[in-house]
Formats: sequence, structure tokens, C-alpha cells
Amino acid sequence: MKHLVSILDLNNKDVNKIFSIAKHFEEVLERRVKKVPALIGKTLALLFIEPSTRTKTSFELAARRLSCDTISLSVSTSSLKKGETLEDTARTLSSMKVDCAVVRHPHEGAAKKLASLNLFPVINGGDGKGEHPTQALLDAYTALKKLKSLNGKKVSIIGDVLHSRVARSGIELWHRLGAKVTLVGPPTLLPRHLPEYVDVSYRLDEVMKNSDILYFLRIQRERLGGECLAGIEDYRDLYALTKDRLKNLRRDVVIMHPGPVNRGIELDPEVIYDERSIIEEQVFEGLSIRMAVLTLLLSEKGGFHEIPA
Amino acid sequence: MKHLVSILDLNNKDVNKIFSIAKHFEEVLERRVKKVPALIGKTLALLFIEPSTRTKTSFELAARRLSCDTISLSVSTSSLKKGETLEDTARTLSSMKVDCAVVRHPHEGAAKKLASLNLFPVINGGDGKGEHPTQALLDAYTALKKLKSLNGKKVSIIGDVLHSRVARSGIELWHRLGAKVTLVGPPTLLPRHLPEYVDVSYRLDEVMKNSDILYFLRIQRERLGGECLAGIEDYRDLYALTKDRLKNLRRDVVIMHPGPVNRGIELDPEVIYDERSIIEEQVFEGLSIRMAVLTLLLSEKGGFHEIPA
Amino acid sequence: MKHLVSILDLNNKDVNKIFSIAKHFEEVLERRVKKVPALIGKTLALLFIEPSTRTKTSFELAARRLSCDTISLSVSTSSLKKGETLEDTARTLSSMKVDCAVVRHPHEGAAKKLASLNLFPVINGGDGKGEHPTQALLDAYTALKKLKSLNGKKVSIIGDVLHSRVARSGIELWHRLGAKVTLVGPPTLLPRHLPEYVDVSYRLDEVMKNSDILYFLRIQRERLGGECLAGIEDYRDLYALTKDRLKNLRRDVVIMHPGPVNRGIELDPEVIYDERSIIEEQVFEGLSIRMAVLTLLLSEKGGFHEIPA
Repeated sequence: MKHLVSILDLNNKDVNKIFSIAKHFEEVLERRVKKVPALIGKTLALLFIEPSTRTKTSFELAARRLSCDTISLSVSTSSLKKGETLEDTARTLSSMKVDCAVVRHPHEGAAKKLASLNLFPVINGGDGKGEHPTQALLDAYTALKKLKSLNGKKVSIIGDVLHSRVARSGIELWHRLGAKVTLVGPPTLLPRHLPEYVDVSYRLDEVMKNSDILYFLRIQRERLGGECLAGIEDYRDLYALTKDRLKNLRRDVVIMHPGPVNRGIELDPEVIYDERSIIEEQVFEGLSIRMAVLTLLLSEKGGFHEIPA
Repeated sequence: MKHLVSILDLNNKDVNKIFSIAKHFEEVLERRVKKVPALIGKTLALLFIEPSTRTKTSFELAARRLSCDTISLSVSTSSLKKGETLEDTARTLSSMKVDCAVVRHPHEGAAKKLASLNLFPVINGGDGKGEHPTQALLDAYTALKKLKSLNGKKVSIIGDVLHSRVARSGIELWHRLGAKVTLVGPPTLLPRHLPEYVDVSYRLDEVMKNSDILYFLRIQRERLGGECLAGIEDYRDLYALTKDRLKNLRRDVVIMHPGPVNRGIELDPEVIYDERSIIEEQVFEGLSIRMAVLTLLLSEKGGFHEIPA
Repeated sequence: MKHLVSILDLNNKDVNKIFSIAKHFEEVLERRVKKVPALIGKTLALLFIEPSTRTKTSFELAARRLSCDTISLSVSTSSLKKGETLEDTARTLSSMKVDCAVVRHPHEGAAKKLASLNLFPVINGGDGKGEHPTQALLDAYTALKKLKSLNGKKVSIIGDVLHSRVARSGIELWHRLGAKVTLVGPPTLLPRHLPEYVDVSYRLDEVMKNSDILYFLRIQRERLGGECLAGIEDYRDLYALTKDRLKNLRRDVVIMHPGPVNRGIELDPEVIYDERSIIEEQVFEGLSIRMAVLTLLLSEKGGFHEIPA
């Protein structure tokens, strides 16, 4: 059985296959009838133990447009309250012939644990500070569409890299697609142990001119003003893409953010809709990538089949 | 792009078109298979920032019966908690190729603001004390079906008119369809500035005999016993359709209420199922009117097309 | 109009019919496309006034796999907060042409009250300590599949029988299918007035060897440590299927539980996945039984018709 828990679950051939199917689904999403019968009679469970509108909505819409049913088990309505474990819930869903589950969980490793039961294909929709592989895939795919190739491109990932599952999945994938990754942030928010191929900088202004892609992470407000950071103003001074910094920015740079943006913290409002930003394209490709991943994981032949029209 | 934010967004031709399509869908709703493929592959977002079972369920069922997918973003599960604005959410939904949104919001003007982005057609599902246009349409349509014509008919709207979005949308539409509107309530709960064509009365007993339609508004319990009103008993004495008042009522009067009824406050329980009440018909027509509005807003030709069988 | 409020609503012919249709749907659930168009254009309302993931998900999936739309009205999003009664909600749903409702309610009698309005077929999804007829049906059906016949079989129901709607519905059905029922629990948690055909025991160890089926009820944690029971340890000593008791268990006994299991209270974790446990099969048959019940209640001919392929 195949799962998508970590970006490491995919070899380069898998990544290319996902991108190629996503390209097909992009076209479906522009049709008058934005729906194909690819996964009719299948059911995707949405196990969101941590709130998330964006990722959940994206998976839900991706499933619907493949004619796949969805069943949502949120924390507040779930039996987890009654002391039922995630494993019990998964076994119940499996007995109910659910075909796949997306799991968002506050604890790192939760998706892996679920996948290890091999009850059904599990997609990691974000596990604590672990991984978020579909986000990395959609990010890389959106950038690839914009820049044609990522080979030799310089990607700066800015913010609280230490606690970011988006960064964790992204670093590996950007690297694998030939990009050169630099992590930018205060020392306390950067990981200590890093692969050799990753650079580090403590100042956004230093890397800005040399970056082809500026990827801003979402700051958890609760971390600001604590031990790690002095406050929002200090963070903005050093790491935010402000209106002022925007003026000095290269014409051909690409601005990215996984959303939702903390306006006035990591990005000024003007930046979001600047012509160099591809943040809205990221949201769109979130759908096509997730449609591709669902199709591959739920296909009869273990992910190697023709895509239905 | 067309929106339905205010009843003023519709000219008389639009209103007639909606009524005519609603008539078609009424018939669909009586079929064995209560579903048509009209909006297959489309997605309606339900943005309910204020709780509402009735309106939300009505839109949700209307969409399903047109084979339209729905996606629900309620307050509790939404990223609005994380500081995301309604505009950000709307832009995200637009990038995800959502085709239309219904918005219920505690603040007047919220639906208009969203519509002004022109991301997708926006339907106002009630904005503070602003407007509630589909409620006005379904009310007028239900009354029209009962009375054949509204021309010259006397409509009394009773209750807290000042804070009522239902009344705000209704007054305009009743008037436009030829009815004579009288507002009835305590002086503190009636608007100060009114169109010339509207009459005012402080006593239900005065207008009861001359009214063809008695339209009771829902009282917000929190307003009773406050500055505006002495209490439930005083309100009942003057403005409720009690069991006693029911005895003296004209045989041919029409009783309406947008629901849910505060039993024993604006209406006694006996009134709801009295043969002169068309409250249940209002709920039914809510579906057919909303199916008509969705079909018009989501059609290819901007609302002027043949209705699919 | 037919309802399923109590197991007494069904005669033996009805029970056999449900089992026979369930058998058909079992096969559908093993197909590649786990969906039939049986109830297309119909809508099932899920009225869960008390939280329940398992039963709600089971009904929701059962409906989807029959191509039946569902509409969910939970407590938190419902107008019940605004003072609307369950009857008002039901009348609204009826006006909206909803075809059937499942009701889960903390008060005994709630489903019966709703059914008495005869607005649409009502399924009791659990009413206080009243009944839970679909649970009884799926339990009996799962045991029947395992043991071929229940005639003369000895069923021990263990735990808080007094407050259990599962037991209330089950006792009647097990008996009717020819099984001999023994209730096992502390005297304070067993009903005082019992049908003559029911035996009582205060010790699990006494009945274990003679039971063909051990049916463990879920303990409400809040009852432990109160007046009725000394505490979890005392309960475990007398009534739990522990790892130790498992060793001495007959090879051919059948272990059942309605779920979710309180691990370490009524069952030790090892028991759940023991080869004698059919707990996962119960969950699976929950779907096929509910698909059968929905098909029968929503069919044109009042439940006597051919099943669609």
C-alpha cells in the first residue's frame, strides 16, 4: 500500500508523475463542468484534529471534483473526546470501507503511525512540526510552472524554519528539483542540524538580491514576543517583505507564501497582490496537485494507470 | 458579474424571471427524484459567519437539488480565527474555482464588500440589520401564489422593524409588487426615516381588520426587557398574534413569519398551524426561490438562459 | 408511514427482509465502485442532538453509497439554541422536502415524539436510555453471519444494562431470534423489572464458560466512582474481559462490543483484535444494515420492493 506521509515517500519518477497528472487536472478545473468521474464510489476521510480551513477545503474540493465522497471527522464532533484513540477511529473507518484518509494532527509522527497500520492510503495533511508533503509539491509545481525549470534557481525560505513542517518538506523537494536553498531567520528559529546543501542567513536584506524565489513562512503569532523574538516590530524590521523592501525588489523575483498570510507581519498587504507574487496560483495548484495525489493513491494499479477523462 | 446583495439589485423583469424559474423548480421538488443536473460541476460556498440553521439548510438543499456541490466554512472551523480576513478567505475560494458564495454576516455591508471584489457572484444571506433579499423574494412569491396578485393588497409588518433585515428587503419588494405597506410596532422599534409610501401604526389591533397580510417579524429575545421594551408580557399585549386575537381575525387574512417563531412571543403556538398561516409554504418556497437565484447567477449567459429539465 | 423507533416496530418478516437486503449491500460494499443509485434525489437529515461520530458516520456513509443526499444539523450549529423546538426543526425539514431523518437525542422518547408527527420516516439513532434499534439489528446480523443460527445460543450482555439503549433494543431482538439472554453486571446497574425469558448474573466468571456470545456494553466513565460503582479497578475485577480472562476463554466464543471501546475498562486492548472478536465486523455490518433500513423506509411501496442493482 502506498502512503504520502513524507516527501521522502516519493522518488523523482513519482514527483514527475504527480506533476504530469496535475497538469491534466488544471485543465479540468478551467472547464465549464469542473468534475470528472475518476473516483466515483470512493470515500476520502478528512481527519482534521487541528483546525485548518485552507488545507481541508482544498482536499474536500479536490475530492468532489473527482466525484469522490468525503466524510469529515473534526475534533469537536469526534469520539476522540470520549477517549477513543486515532487508531480506533482509523480501524472504524477502515471497517466502514473508507478508501483513503488525510490527517492533520498537532503531533509529529501521527500520520506515520496511522500509515503504519496499512488500513488505507494515508496522506499527511500536516503533523506538528513534521511534514506537509502536498504543500511542498504544490509549491514546487507552482514555481516550476512560473520559471520553467528550478535547476540552479536560488530559493530563500524566510521565517520560523525550525517549527515549520512546510519548510521541512520543502527543503528536500526544492533541493531534489535542482534549486539551491537558503534558510533565513533569527538564529533561534533556524534548525541546528542541516543538510550540507543548505545555506543559512540571518538577514533578509542580504539574500534578497540573489534570490530567484522568496518563500515566506507563516509566523505563529504566539511565538512573537516570547523567548524567541522580541516582538512584531523587530521581526518586521528584519524578515518581513514590507512595502519599502518591495520597492528595491528584483523585477523577476517570485514571491511565495503557503497562506493564510499574517498581513503586516511577514508580508505587507501590498505584497500579496503584487505582480511578482504567485500566492493565488499556489492555492489553485493546491487543488490540481491534490487531485493528482488522490488519483494516484486511490487507483486500482497502485498509482500507475491512465488518467480518466 | 451579477450579485444579489440588495433587493435593489433586481429590476422588475429580474423578479419576474426568478418567480417564473421558481415555479418550474416547485414542480421538480414534488417529483420522485427531486434533483436536476443543472449545476453539475459547480460549487457554492456557504460562508456563515453568524449561526443560521434555516437559511443555511435551505441554500444547501437548493444547491444539492441542482447537483451543485457545496462547501461550508463556518466560524468555528474557519481560519478567520487565525486572523484571516473575509477578503482573504474569498480570494482563496476564488483561486479554488468556487463558483458562488452565500454570505451571512453580523455586520451590515459585509456582503456588499465581498461582492465588490467581483471574484464570484455573491448572495447576501443576511448582513446585520442590512438586507436579506432571498427572504423577501420567497415571502412575496409565497403570498403571490396564495393571493394571485399583490396589487392593492395591504401588508402589515409587525415587530422590531428597526433592526430587521427581513423588513428592510421586504418593504421595497412588497411596494414594488403593488402592495401597500404598514409598519406596526412600538415607536422605539420603528425606523425614523421612511419612504413616503409606507404607513406606520403603533397598535396591531388598529390595523388587523384592514390587513390582507399580517407579516410577523422574529423578536430578538435580548431586546425584550431592555431599554426598548418593558418585557415579553407588554409586547404580547400589543403586538403578538395570540389565541384571543386569532378568534377575531378575518377569514381571508394571510399570516406570515420568516421563522423560527418564538412561540408565545410573537405568535401563539395555535397560530403557526392555523389554516390562514402560510409559514410552512414560506419554507418550501425558500427552496424553489433559492434554486432559481442560484441557477440565474451561475448560468453561462449571466442569468438569461433556458432552464435545464 | 413507517418508522424505526423501537425494535418492536418490526415483525419477524421485517427483520428477515432487512437482513436479506443487508446481505445484498454487503456485496456492493466490496465492489470497486461502492455505490448504487437506489436513493438518488432523496435527502436524509442527520439530527444529532447528542454527539456521536460512529453512528452518524455510519448513517452518512450508508446514505452516500445509496446516492442519497444528507443534511446535518448538529447542536452547535442548530437553531435549537435560538429556542426552536425539535418539532419546529422537523416541520421545517419536512417543508424543505427532506425524505427521512435519523435522530440521536439525550432524552428517551424523543424519536417517538418526532415519529408521531408523521412528517417523514424517523429512525431512532439512540434516545437517552431508550432504544437504538439499528445497533440491535447490526449486532444480531453480525452474530448470525458468524454462527449461522442464533437458535438456542447463549448471549451474555455485560455491563451497565440499566442505562443502556443498546441492551434495551438488543434483549428483545436476541430473544426473538431464539437466543437465551443473560444480563451480567452489578445489581445497581441491572434493571429491576425484566421479562421472564431473561436471566441475571452478578459475576462474569460464572457465565463465561456457558456463553456462546459475550456482548460487552460501553461503560460511561462518569458512572464509575459514583454511587453505583466503587471505581474502575473494582469494575475490571468483576466485569472486564481482561488479558487474564482471555486465556481461559472458550475457543469458539464470540466477543462483541458496540464501540467505541474504553480500552482497559470493559475490554483490554488485546481483546479487541483477538480472533474471537467480531467488533470490526459489527462496524462493517452497521453500514449494510443501515443501507437496508434506509432503502426500505424510503422506497416507494412502503418497504416492499425490489432492490436496485
